[in-house]
Formats: sequence, structure tokens, C-alpha cells
Amino acid sequence: MKNAILKYQDVALKIQLMIIQQGLAKGTRLANIEDLINQYGVSRSTIMKALDRLERSGVIYQVQGSGIFVRQLKKNDHLNFMESQGFTNDMSKLSGAFVVYHVDTIKPNLYIQEHLQCEAHDDVYYVKRIRYSDGKIYGFEQSYYLKKLVPYLNKEIAEGSIFTYIKDVCGVNVGFSDKYFNVIKLDAKTAGYLDLAENDPALEVEEVFHTTAGEPFDLSRVVYHYENTKFFIQSHLK
Amino acid sequence: MKNAILKYQDVALKIQLMIIQQGLAKGTRLANIEDLINQYGVSRSTIMKALDRLERSGVIYQVQGSGIFVRQLKKNDHLNFMESQGFTNDMSKLSGAFVVYHVDTIKPNLYIQEHLQCEAHDDVYYVKRIRYSDGKIYGFEQSYYLKKLVPYLNKEIAEGSIFTYIKDVCGVNVGFSDKYFNVIKLDAKTAGYLDLAENDPALEVEEVFHTTAGEPFDLSRVVYHYENTKFFIQSHLK
Repeated sequence: MKNAILKYQDVALKIQLMIIQQGLAKGTRLANIEDLINQYGVSRSTIMKALDRLERSGVIYQVQGSGIFVRQLKKNDHLNFMESQGFTNDMSKLSGAFVVYHVDTIKPNLYIQEHLQCEAHDDVYYVKRIRYSDGKIYGFEQSYYLKKLVPYLNKEIAEGSIFTYIKDVCGVNVGFSDKYFNVIKLDAKTAGYLDLAENDPALEVEEVFHTTAGEPFDLSRVVYHYENTKFFIQSHLK
Repeated sequence: MKNAILKYQDVALKIQLMIIQQGLAKGTRLANIEDLINQYGVSRSTIMKALDRLERSGVIYQVQGSGIFVRQLKKNDHLNFMESQGFTNDMSKLSGAFVVYHVDTIKPNLYIQEHLQCEAHDDVYYVKRIRYSDGKIYGFEQSYYLKKLVPYLNKEIAEGSIFTYIKDVCGVNVGFSDKYFNVIKLDAKTAGYLDLAENDPALEVEEVFHTTAGEPFDLSRVVYHYENTKFFIQSHLK
């Protein structure tokens, strides 16, 4: 069930790595498509798909009749808001860690039932943890995983990237997510988890993750520390 | 210079409109690809591109070997964070309006020069406005447009969607944007614009918009009212 990396994904990763390793600046023109085909020894359609992926994820931009250029962010201390899947991809690159309060099996209340499209008798893993990085608190997370799709979870797994585990070990094909967020004033209890004061500001993010088949499997609520986290999104507006 | 709507974009819009008009629920299976080809009288590749676009923008999801399904949000009172281009697409659907404080031509300071990649002697339009909707303040916006690419702007234009004007009248091809955001405590002055108190929380969003050729043309800073705005993003994680 392990998700295979497709050829175009592999090529996309190699191009991205090359940009990072060579430290290419924004606006640098990359090799043209013919050269990339030769360089990576793949078909035109594989290169096109790889470039499309890199364009959508904000690594490059393509100018018709002119070439392929490096896109780069001005600010590197920001977290990628599109990759913060319950604190995974992007944040796992940081020298950070989770402190896990508990991983329990619970029966879902109405709120969870509605978001995970499950029944009152279904089992759900409830994970409560805090993300630290460089000695700073990033956020307080409460997540609910449907046991039907994530058959096993424990404290040790929750100390790392749960998403990597879900994808690689449980074989869940992650498809899409609905993300809702707004700014709040902290209540005393949540403020305590973040080492902040009551009524301090915070970003609250609620996200429902679905498999590629459209089944919700994870409801995640993260409250981010307003002083310790900043975010970016690279949009592709075409 | 007016941007033409491509055939696949037209088909994508028609499918989206059909979903809305028929009020199709999440998980509803759409016609298969053969049927769509017949229904819209276009080629397979046009349908595939239209479906890819709809999938990326969160309207549908495709399950291999199973079909095309409607994706829909649980919460309709949230603003689309990916379409809030300086308060345009999504928000212009609302019964809202801008109150424009001023539209001035200025010389850019270092901060603006850096973000718009321009020189100290270049002219920049500075727009300061507030977005209202249903009698509520949504946000306070300060935007800087490079006159090289946006040759004319006035108060009347700024009372509507500046982006629609820029695209349709100035012929700017909007390509991509870098979006940075974080939560802040309001200073007294900005709080005044939002009818909030000093130290109340807010979401601050800074965005740099680029043409398809990679030239930055708009630097926009919006501070959103924490009680009156909530956001969503529909991610496509594949």
C-alpha cells in the first residue's frame, strides 16, 4: 500500500534540489525543455508534468516563449501554510519536536462526527500535542483520526510526523483538505498551553483531511503562537 | 491586450455553474468524461484540462477508476483566502463596498522598492481603503501599484475591484503571488480604521503580485478584522 513516487514527481524533486543546492536566485533562467529531457533522460510529457508541479508549488514560473525561471521567497523565516498538514512536511524540516500530552481512543461527539462523516459508535484517536522548535512553542494541536483508516497510533508515533506514518505505514492516500481559519483571543486554558496570557491573539486553524477517494480521516485543530509563527503561501493565479 | 478566456476555462466555469445551480451535494458523482465531451462539444484534452483546473480550485475531486465527484465546503460564511487578491474575486461577490481614503502617486521607500523591484525614482500608486460588507468592516488595505504596469488609477476605480480593472483595462496578465501573513496586536492607529481597540488581535497579510512574466506590480498589505472575517482554503494535496 506504500505510495510509490511517480517518475515526474522524482524529476520535480531533483530539479527543486538542484535549485536549492546551487542557490539559484529568483529570476534565474533554468535549462530549456529539450535540455531537461536530455539531462534527466525522461520523456517530454514527464518533464512537462514535473514543471507543472513545480510551478503549482511555487518553485518556478514559466514564461511562454521565454523560458523557465526560479521563483524564490524574500522571507525564509516563514512557515509554508500549505504544507503544515497537522505540523508535518514543512515543520518537520525544522529542528523541532512534539511534546505529546496523550493519544486516546474516544467516541466522537457530534462535532467530530459531522466533520469526519462517522457514527457515534466509531472509534477515533484523539491526539493532543505541542510543537516546539528551537526552544519556542509553535502551536497547540488537537487532532482526531478515524480508526477505520488509521488502525493504530501511539505516543511514540505522535512524537514524530503522524502524516508520514499515515501515508507510509497505513497506506492512506492523502487527497485534499478543507482548511478553515480565523483569529481569536485566547481563553485561559489554551493560553496556558502556549505560555501566553488570556486574551492574547492567536491563529486558529481547523483542517479536515480526505483520502484521494474523498473520505475524511483526520480533523485537526491547531492554535498557533502569534509571536513565534509567521506563514507564507505561494499562489499560482493563472 | 484583454485576457481571452481559454476554451478549457470556459468549460470549467460552465461545470462549476452547473454544480451551483443544481445545488449538487458533496460526493455527488458527475457525468463521466465521455458524457462531458459530448455535452460540451469539446475535445478530450479540453475536458481533462477543465477537470484539472476544477480539481485544483477545490470544486471537484477525481477518483481513479471511479469517477468525478463534487467537493463542497461545510461552512459558507468563510472567505476564500486564495481568491482575496487585494479584496477582489471572492469578496466582490459579497454585497460589499470600498471606502477609499485616497489614491496618490508617490515615490517608493526602500521597503516598497525591494518588494516591487523598482527604483527610488519610479512612480507608484498608493491606495488606502477599507472594505465593508453587510455594514461590517472586513479589513484595512494599503496597496502600492507600479505605474509602469498600471499607468492609471483613481478613487473611482479603487471603489471597485482594482484587479478586474488591472486585468481587463491595463491588460496585465496576473501570474502568481507571494503571500506572507501573521497575527498581530493592533496599534492604536490601525485599530481606529477597523473600529477596534488598541491591542485587539488581527490577521496581517502582505502580498506581492507578479505578472506571468515574473514582474512584481502590486504590493498589498491588508489587516483583517478578527471578529468579522473567517477564511477557508481548499487544498489539493496530491
